[in-house]
Amino acid sequence: MKKVCSIFLIQWCFVSGAQAESAVTPDMARTAARLIERAQTGNIAFELVQSLTTEVGPRLAGTPAEAQARNWAREKLERLGFENVRIETFEVPVWLRGLERARIVSPFPQPLRVTALGGSTSTDEQGVEGQVVRFPSLDSLIEADPGLVAGKIVFVDEVMARKRDGSGYGVAVQKRLRTAYVAQQLGAIAALIRSVGTSTHRFPHTGQMRPVSDSDGILGVPMAALSAPDADQLSRVLSYGEPVVVHLLVTPELRSPAQSGNVIAEIRGRESPEEIVLAGAHLDSWDLGTGAVDDGAGVGIVIAAARLLLEHLSEAPRRTIRIVLFGSEEVGYVGARDYTERYSEELPQHIVAAESDFGAGDIWRFDTRFPAKQLPYATEIAGVLSPLGIVRGNNTAYGGPDLRYMRESGVPVITLLQDGTDYFDLHHTPNDTLDKIGSADLHQNVAAWAAFLYLAAETEVYFRDTEATGVTGTR
Amino acid sequence: MKKVCSIFLIQWCFVSGAQAESAVTPDMARTAARLIERAQTGNIAFELVQSLTTEVGPRLAGTPAEAQARNWAREKLERLGFENVRIETFEVPVWLRGLERARIVSPFPQPLRVTALGGSTSTDEQGVEGQVVRFPSLDSLIEADPGLVAGKIVFVDEVMARKRDGSGYGVAVQKRLRTAYVAQQLGAIAALIRSVGTSTHRFPHTGQMRPVSDSDGILGVPMAALSAPDADQLSRVLSYGEPVVVHLLVTPELRSPAQSGNVIAEIRGRESPEEIVLAGAHLDSWDLGTGAVDDGAGVGIVIAAARLLLEHLSEAPRRTIRIVLFGSEEVGYVGARDYTERYSEELPQHIVAAESDFGAGDIWRFDTRFPAKQLPYATEIAGVLSPLGIVRGNNTAYGGPDLRYMRESGVPVITLLQDGTDYFDLHHTPNDTLDKIGSADLHQNVAAWAAFLYLAAETEVYFRDTEATGVTGTR
Repeated sequence: MKKVCSIFLIQWCFVSGAQAESAVTPDMARTAARLIERAQTGNIAFELVQSLTTEVGPRLAGTPAEAQARNWAREKLERLGFENVRIETFEVPVWLRGLERARIVSPFPQPLRVTALGGSTSTDEQGVEGQVVRFPSLDSLIEADPGLVAGKIVFVDEVMARKRDGSGYGVAVQKRLRTAYVAQQLGAIAALIRSVGTSTHRFPHTGQMRPVSDSDGILGVPMAALSAPDADQLSRVLSYGEPVVVHLLVTPELRSPAQSGNVIAEIRGRESPEEIVLAGAHLDSWDLGTGAVDDGAGVGIVIAAARLLLEHLSEAPRRTIRIVLFGSEEVGYVGARDYTERYSEELPQHIVAAESDFGAGDIWRFDTRFPAKQLPYATEIAGVLSPLGIVRGNNTAYGGPDLRYMRESGVPVITLLQDGTDYFDLHHTPNDTLDKIGSADLHQNVAAWAAFLYLAAETEVYFRDTEATGVTGTR
Repeated sequence: MKKVCSIFLIQWCFVSGAQAESAVTPDMARTAARLIERAQTGNIAFELVQSLTTEVGPRLAGTPAEAQARNWAREKLERLGFENVRIETFEVPVWLRGLERARIVSPFPQPLRVTALGGSTSTDEQGVEGQVVRFPSLDSLIEADPGLVAGKIVFVDEVMARKRDGSGYGVAVQKRLRTAYVAQQLGAIAALIRSVGTSTHRFPHTGQMRPVSDSDGILGVPMAALSAPDADQLSRVLSYGEPVVVHLLVTPELRSPAQSGNVIAEIRGRESPEEIVLAGAHLDSWDLGTGAVDDGAGVGIVIAAARLLLEHLSEAPRRTIRIVLFGSEEVGYVGARDYTERYSEELPQHIVAAESDFGAGDIWRFDTRFPAKQLPYATEIAGVLSPLGIVRGNNTAYGGPDLRYMRESGVPVITLLQDGTDYFDLHHTPNDTLDKIGSADLHQNVAAWAAFLYLAAETEVYFRDTEATGVTGTR
């Protein structure tokens, strides 16, 4: 045992020595270390992001551009040597942005920079005009006296916290998900929110209101996000104490459902091809930017990592590695739902799933969602990743937005958590463009993904409780 | 002499001991040091920028908003206790932005972020569509074969250099000033330029093409600036080697001349009120942002500095300090021309002029444009400024855009040169908003300006060659 304890394997040795059944054999650890080394000397992730964001650009769910992105992905995946490359289509309602303008009418006339939120209804062609009533938080709007809100434009001015792990988003996004409907119930004529995001630049952040799938016929008032400097400005103008009147024009259209789809590709497992290690990212993007960090980066990372295995392993791993590039993530995980329904019978054979959808920052933490008795395996894998500066995290991994339904159905998920300190500066803004990623920025990500995918597909252990779920495997 | 050589005065003492006639007496040096100290513990510069950018916001030359800014300035200056506060009006052609949209039609359809450049002609309502021909520089366009350009959209992709002293701008701005006219002569149908600016964000920078005053009836093709990421993208798409077709719609309007104006206020000199020390900034701004760094900051700095003298000096300085807030700077120094013509007879009595129009960065260099024999005075003043981290610079000072005609007519100018490393990230973009300035960011500027204005107005020396220009003064 001691013989294989190179500097890179010390942590693995320490861990694996402490338990009877091992997820990572010495040979596997060596192979993973080699993959890590190779990923860091160069891989195709950036090239893929560049190609997708240049040749397709923005690719909103259900649009011809998203279809173009699927064709792009299929062609790339086939050329790179993956197997079973396929597009699996489904339908999605199409929401298209129209005009979007806002201005302070009084007391200090001036334009405001806004963007309509996904799913927002349209104002009429003349727009709406009304007095603004500000709420420091969604909660304060929810508790508001309808008499103060009726006939007015509500403005929810809650500020999102900047956090390395992105945890500010889950809190802040509530106002995007709920304000238009709460405002409608209170009799408001329109709603403005401070953008869900951390950019201090003059970019409003778009994003979906209530997911398409959750629609219950209540459409909400027309709603737009203000950039942070514009929210500051509106707040400051309100602080003078005079009535503030704003004019808002947004003319998005909700069109009949159109085709969207997921793109799937595999490295077929050499021994247990029916067992799936799923590597996800999403192919669609918002329309304002070119979807470089959200989620061109994820597309590049997972494909490049899997490609590294194709190139550098002498044979396929034991299990199947399945790349799933989800469609229509941004508008409510529609591709994720389609995948989960389509593969419902195979989900028990999904060994583990992960998604890369948090930009281009380095991975710093390895989170899992495994049953307690499987946790030693997580520790072993974390040991292999630690030379990349990745620490073992918690066991409440989120996995990624497109893993939501899989996670709920019991598929073990992990998160290779990226540093997202700056992610929400770009996310859902026009500024999400290729230049925000350096050509070597993705190397560490690809290294961690390649190592993880290899280990998960090669190991003989399971990350779920096989007795409880009735999974049958090779042991 | 030694007695007054406190730690703050050492450099002054050293210098003043070396020459017979001194610009700065020990009393003056002490007063300047006190003004510097007071400025740094608080002043009203930020408050002024906040008020102007909030209550007026964007204030394009010749618009009602610019008139509003003049009223704002007059009221503030009167309230702050300045004398002879007045608005001096003149007319300026009014250029108003309309729609602005661009997209790549083929081979990779996607939108591009553009903004029309000041003075640009309009496309028709349908826009123009044509093949793009790229030039790496304005020079290469000038030398182009008309056969390669005729019927096409030219794209001048020159990159501006980021420099602390802003010297990249003078070079880069040439493409904004000249491309539309050169392109027209070569038979192009429209022009795109990479924005004159250093922002890597997705903000196109606007700015004037040929100054209004230089118009010769040649109107140029419709012209727009691409943000840097969009210029990168267009360049990248062109690099695939296929013909690239772009659609451009810009619908600005050139309206009949309307009123603009300068706002003037004074601290009347106690002994030689006819001698003027001019402190300038400009009141107008581009329409995209709220004109915080360009030039709300300058407005705040010069008013706050002069106000400090009003508050902390027991009597007015010997000479008059004249604040001039120029109108219509952005569209071609129209207010500067009006001022110079209006005061042509008094220009010989303009002792020195300076303008603050380079944002909110700290001042790091003191440049002058004095006759050689007056240079020792510059050295003395530099000594007083040195505790602020300001070094003595060159004697080829630019002074500021609105000092152009005064400088040409022989008025000595100085530049309190700010660190402009980041200035062109914001300049002429929607992102030029108040939040880019911290409440204490302007203190050092105000300190330097207060000291300089005081010294220049109190000293008995002249900064021009009085024998050559026939200036008569108190000595």
